[in-house]
Amino acid sequence: MADPLRIVLVSSRNPLNIGAAARAMSNFGFTDLRVVNPYEVAYQEARSAVRSHYILGQSQQCSTVAEATVGCTLVVGTTAVGNRDLHVPLYRLETGAELLREHLASGAKAALLFGSEKFGLSNAEMSHCQWLMRIPTRAEHGSMNLGQAVAVCLYEMRRQAAAVNQPAFEKPPVASSDERERLTSILMELLIESGYAQERTLESTELKLRRLIHRINIASNDAEALLGMLRHILWKMRRTR
Amino acid sequence: MADPLRIVLVSSRNPLNIGAAARAMSNFGFTDLRVVNPYEVAYQEARSAVRSHYILGQSQQCSTVAEATVGCTLVVGTTAVGNRDLHVPLYRLETGAELLREHLASGAKAALLFGSEKFGLSNAEMSHCQWLMRIPTRAEHGSMNLGQAVAVCLYEMRRQAAAVNQPAFEKPPVASSDERERLTSILMELLIESGYAQERTLESTELKLRRLIHRINIASNDAEALLGMLRHILWKMRRTR
Repeated sequence: MADPLRIVLVSSRNPLNIGAAARAMSNFGFTDLRVVNPYEVAYQEARSAVRSHYILGQSQQCSTVAEATVGCTLVVGTTAVGNRDLHVPLYRLETGAELLREHLASGAKAALLFGSEKFGLSNAEMSHCQWLMRIPTRAEHGSMNLGQAVAVCLYEMRRQAAAVNQPAFEKPPVASSDERERLTSILMELLIESGYAQERTLESTELKLRRLIHRINIASNDAEALLGMLRHILWKMRRTR
Repeated sequence: MADPLRIVLVSSRNPLNIGAAARAMSNFGFTDLRVVNPYEVAYQEARSAVRSHYILGQSQQCSTVAEATVGCTLVVGTTAVGNRDLHVPLYRLETGAELLREHLASGAKAALLFGSEKFGLSNAEMSHCQWLMRIPTRAEHGSMNLGQAVAVCLYEMRRQAAAVNQPAFEKPPVASSDERERLTSILMELLIESGYAQERTLESTELKLRRLIHRINIASNDAEALLGMLRHILWKMRRTR
């Protein structure tokens, strides 16, 4: 089955960036890569890299954006600049990714274009795009590394809004009152044994200690482990007295 | 004012990755970088890079995770593996970033740890973390490039849920009925002039054309531009007849 989202790198110059783009595609489960007019040495060098070789191996080299976007019913460009006269709608990545997902959900194919490291997409390349999107970087340093920009966009495509606030890990049960009591009493014995707790402050020390132990957020199994350690320390202290 | 989120790179080996992490920090507006036990040559090489030099220039080199996380009331680790016995809660990035934002909103400081390129965070390094988070990559290829992982996490920290479905660009007004009528009539003149529309099909052709023109989603200024082009074509056709 053809991958519905095609990644198109236009005029990339750096083999590390082409390789990094392919790696991010593999990380997030995209396979359709086209490379327009790359610096030939860079493309060949990237193809020989070990990681993600299956994506680069099946990638297609094209000479024009039109050729690279054949069969796509939506073509989206990426840009770092927000103030250029863009002629087409510009969305933040959060919005653009949602629009892309809606388009792909209908079974249609789309292309996502990334321009050259130095200049981004040219006006001529942008004229193939229905709209553009922008990663919300700082105005003072908007231009991202190409491989990082691809990774961020593909992450946003795979992001699950529903995953927020759904812990993937169940917290272990917290210590019970009786476990806390056993902790309190063994610590008291240690404090007495060590001379920290004196006869006349015994009661107030125990009160402070009990409050402290009941405030702590400690898991049941951690309390048991700690009890074992404290018991051993107490045993050793009494033995060597 | 101190940056509330500190980025900690542990045992990084590749100067390009350290530089890429600093660049992503600059892109998304983070400044506090600490590097634990880096490969010395890599660290020095990264510091000499041009971009984001202000971040690397003020970064601190530490020898332990404990030293790198001094002053932080929350320490969060990143991991690519979900099946290791982790001892601490593991959240997806979407959830983890939300928890981090809540912590930072209270004015407290937090550290976000990234492990070495080859092995990630060790169990010893993870033991400094209250919890871990994982970028939702494919199970078959979970491990991301370090610079890309930093970029994705920092993007998620800056992501604005409210930005979804809020177009940053106002769509230009669409063409009015009278503009569409002018388009229809000049196209009809062209079709007659070119011989496409014959006397006996004139009415049905005009009906088809009008329906087509009124279906098209075209902006007002684009309709005007098109009208100008069509007028010129008509003028030329009549002149050279």
